Amino acid sequence: MVPFKVEFLIKIGDLEQKRAMLNQMNVRGLLFDPYNNAYIVILRDEEHSDMLPIWVGKSEASAISFALEKISPPRPMTHDLMKTMLDNMDAKVISTVITDLKDNTYFAKIHLLFGDSEFTVDSRPSDAIAVALRTEAPIFASGEVLHKQNSEELERWLENLKPEDFGKSDV
Amino acid sequence: MVPFKVEFLIKIGDLEQKRAMLNQMNVRGLLFDPYNNAYIVILRDEEHSDMLPIWVGKSEASAISFALEKISPPRPMTHDLMKTMLDNMDAKVISTVITDLKDNTYFAKIHLLFGDSEFTVDSRPSDAIAVALRTEAPIFASGEVLHKQNSEELERWLENLKPEDFGKSDV
Repeated sequence: MVPFKVEFLIKIGDLEQKRAMLNQMNVRGLLFDPYNNAYIVILRDEEHSDMLPIWVGKSEASAISFALEKISPPRPMTHDLMKTMLDNMDAKVISTVITDLKDNTYFAKIHLLFGDSEFTVDSRPSDAIAVALRTEAPIFASGEVLHKQNSEELERWLENLKPEDFGKSDV
Repeated sequence: MVPFKVEFLIKIGDLEQKRAMLNQMNVRGLLFDPYNNAYIVILRDEEHSDMLPIWVGKSEASAISFALEKISPPRPMTHDLMKTMLDNMDAKVISTVITDLKDNTYFAKIHLLFGDSEFTVDSRPSDAIAVALRTEAPIFASGEVLHKQNSEELERWLENLKPEDFGKSDV
């Protein structure tokens, strides 16, 4: 039997490893959030069934929705223009990563292959997702983000509870 | 004296030449249009004082406004991301052109220099302007667009006149 202290350290190690790992996410859909007058992009890690809801504005939601529904607008939208520019220069989007979550704000990066070299640019997750869907690049989320999201989501949930919510009961 | 018919042909020739010419435009400002719940980007040809009003959505107006006011948002907006990608690949925006106006819709192109070659991508004028302002590239409008804009604008103005408008008088 592994002594408690060592077992605890192993678990901490596991957790750190899990947080550093990248989880491939699928875009499951878009929801409208009437309370915040915003849209929520739902990402899901198919392996662990972790959900990652990301709040985005209307135009960002449109950019993602057009790609999800494979709609070709009569005139190029901003992310279509970006893709055309990248195609013209033979640059390839390798992957996009939702890297961090701080104060309810998500951060992302886009990794590109250009000639023999790679480079990474900072991005809002909505842009990263809109670009990934158009270039068929994978979307990852760090374990750290998935972990933080669950904690922050819980906090937000608790903050939003009103006194009257505690009085409610089905009994 | 030039005979009337020849003089007329010379004028037609002038007009055609004028329409084919590119006029450099400055972004004079952004207005809110409450009737259409949209924003209007005002471009002006400083040489001939021609104005070109272009209706854009809220997010496009934000993208242009941030560049006009030289605001650096905490996270990169979509056109900032586009500029960072272009910078990373040493691609340069040479110019942007508002090329055409059909059924109240403007069309534009962005010309880029990449290595030893140039390429052109179709764009919405709002994207072209947002990119031009960030890359300090000039914005042109074809004489054709300026000519059409005046006709279409006049038509729209006449269409919007209500019967009661005819009764109005300051006399």
